[in-house]
Amino acid sequence: MVRINENYLRLPASYLFSEIARRAREFQAANPDARLMRLGIGNTTEPLAPSVIKGLHDGVEKLAHVETYSGYGDEQGDAALRRRIAEVKYGERGLAIEPDEIFISDGAKSDTANIQSLFDPFAVVAIQDPAYPVYVDTNVIAGRESFVSMACTEANGFVPSVPSIHADIIYICSPNNPTGAVATRANLEAFVAYALANDAIILYDAAYECFIRDRDLPRSIYEIVGARKCAIELGTFSKEAGFTGVRLGWTVVPKGLAIDAKNPRSVNELWNRRQTTFFNGASNVAQSGGLAALTPEGRHENDAIIELYMANGTVIREGLQSVGLTVYGGTNAPYVWAKCPAGYDSWAFFDKMLDEAHVITTPGSGFGPGGEGFLRLSAFGHPESIRRAVDSIRSNVRL
Amino acid sequence: MVRINENYLRLPASYLFSEIARRAREFQAANPDARLMRLGIGNTTEPLAPSVIKGLHDGVEKLAHVETYSGYGDEQGDAALRRRIAEVKYGERGLAIEPDEIFISDGAKSDTANIQSLFDPFAVVAIQDPAYPVYVDTNVIAGRESFVSMACTEANGFVPSVPSIHADIIYICSPNNPTGAVATRANLEAFVAYALANDAIILYDAAYECFIRDRDLPRSIYEIVGARKCAIELGTFSKEAGFTGVRLGWTVVPKGLAIDAKNPRSVNELWNRRQTTFFNGASNVAQSGGLAALTPEGRHENDAIIELYMANGTVIREGLQSVGLTVYGGTNAPYVWAKCPAGYDSWAFFDKMLDEAHVITTPGSGFGPGGEGFLRLSAFGHPESIRRAVDSIRSNVRL
Repeated sequence: MVRINENYLRLPASYLFSEIARRAREFQAANPDARLMRLGIGNTTEPLAPSVIKGLHDGVEKLAHVETYSGYGDEQGDAALRRRIAEVKYGERGLAIEPDEIFISDGAKSDTANIQSLFDPFAVVAIQDPAYPVYVDTNVIAGRESFVSMACTEANGFVPSVPSIHADIIYICSPNNPTGAVATRANLEAFVAYALANDAIILYDAAYECFIRDRDLPRSIYEIVGARKCAIELGTFSKEAGFTGVRLGWTVVPKGLAIDAKNPRSVNELWNRRQTTFFNGASNVAQSGGLAALTPEGRHENDAIIELYMANGTVIREGLQSVGLTVYGGTNAPYVWAKCPAGYDSWAFFDKMLDEAHVITTPGSGFGPGGEGFLRLSAFGHPESIRRAVDSIRSNVRL
Repeated sequence: MVRINENYLRLPASYLFSEIARRAREFQAANPDARLMRLGIGNTTEPLAPSVIKGLHDGVEKLAHVETYSGYGDEQGDAALRRRIAEVKYGERGLAIEPDEIFISDGAKSDTANIQSLFDPFAVVAIQDPAYPVYVDTNVIAGRESFVSMACTEANGFVPSVPSIHADIIYICSPNNPTGAVATRANLEAFVAYALANDAIILYDAAYECFIRDRDLPRSIYEIVGARKCAIELGTFSKEAGFTGVRLGWTVVPKGLAIDAKNPRSVNELWNRRQTTFFNGASNVAQSGGLAALTPEGRHENDAIIELYMANGTVIREGLQSVGLTVYGGTNAPYVWAKCPAGYDSWAFFDKMLDEAHVITTPGSGFGPGGEGFLRLSAFGHPESIRRAVDSIRSNVRL
């Protein structure tokens, strides 16, 4: 028989969302009149901005006419879109990123998952705990066995210190999923200094960058001097423009990224080879929508939607605080990280929220051992649904 | 320094299309009045069918309204689309493929590239020569070193015999890129028998299936008894619906696929795990377009576009034959495979076509050593452009 890639069998079992669904189903069956409310899922709910809708329709309409139809697109993604990302996301902030350092993709998840394939199978990988499970899972599938866990705790404000031992690849997500913590400039300076000293590469997941409102907080790793030599940044339209289903993202691979001197090709060239071999570009319709999202009008409209989600975050945070819970995150980030009351672990508190308030949350332990004792609550949702769920927690959860 | 995945350095250099572009550029510079014509590229050129355009617009419009907006989609792709593919592509032909055996993707290229990751790094891989370069390249990047070459020659009508030694994974592309050859039922029966006897898995690339008009030729590997136990099939909307830029495809992983008995999970489950870890679904807009492409109206309209490309194929084939060239393919396939005249290798004949007829083709040697001595010509193009290019070959190429 064909043998499978046995690394799949080493994967940590992933029952988080199916277990949540199972418990919700059972509760609903036992309590048919209860109306379940969801504060758990990191999925956008608001319709797309009008100018983005127009951009998508324009992209479709181009395909209807012989003069404007296009098939396979530009190798690294639409050149106009790459120029606009370089300008809006980096140039306006005084950061020099060239369009040929930007690769358009079908979303940050794919790139976050695939980028590790450029590196040695024996590389040592440092990952925050808790963290987005894709970082660990993709490295396990690739056969890597050396992981360094970077603890995110109340004591360090959920932004870890640099590893105390050598790591080759370091995943940092800020604003963080699941904790909602945002790395400060000093935090990121420490990581860049570590990476330069250790010849390591930082994979900077900036998927939630658009939620940063505090002007002192860095929105890109390239705001840190030296980062162009040691960091790859992953960006997305998923949250900023509501493209969770439309699928569009980008990755910045600086041409000056330092790499093993024996390697005759730059990481930028390697990623280009990887993408042109394994991928054939993001949908041209999605790219047309992305271009519209980065016009002044599109940005203005999308800002209003982000404000709506952030107002949800405030409602959740203040609601939980008002019943005496300790909460983190929820400012400059779409996730609120709530500490379970004494005597409850993540699943026990999940059950209590479900039983008493009919609210579905996400147990922090699903994101790694460091998430035990917390719940993740998501600011994505219609404001009236969020308010109803929070009201139910305030009225019904007995602490 | 972080070491890179050194398999990238083992990749065969891929200068085919850049070398074609360089030669075309140089010719144009030396002959500024010449009007270059392209018969080389496998890229769709005709606008999308009206009902598909409507399907795409509908998909966009749903995202504009709170009642119909959707974020992340179903895990294996839109359930309605999977049901329709099961019905239109398999059920109507009497083939029992369940919707949960179908995985929607952003195109056959991604799946063709990624599917190998399910299997052991020491698997022996059989690949046609010549072939679509993605098969070899992705296996080299994954670290595989054992390849079995299956020669496609004039003598075997460019459909190879089964390997004479053991292989674990077998790539078959029919209708074939680049040769335009189509496997008969007997050909595929031999491969299925080989796979079952050798405990091998067939990866059946059916990207050009929609060009098959001859009712005796199989359009799916599942028309062969036993294939559900040994074959994965890759399909796409790229050519059938002009989605080269819209990006939409699917892969069939039968639940009954035989696999190493030690493996506690089916290949279907493994592919689901792979896709939910590395991928987040095809664009919901593209999926809405794909659903429209499989309505009776969409199929009827798309058939007319395919007929147009096939008429191009006839024009190319007959034009080349009329000047005394030996040609293969171009019926039931969008590629014509032209034998170079005595004394010319692929690049020499490419140059002759460029110099004398101002026509750009694709040297067969770019698809592997077995392609040496041939040119690939593509039936994708506007009919008037194809006719002009063929007229130029007839008038100007001195054989």
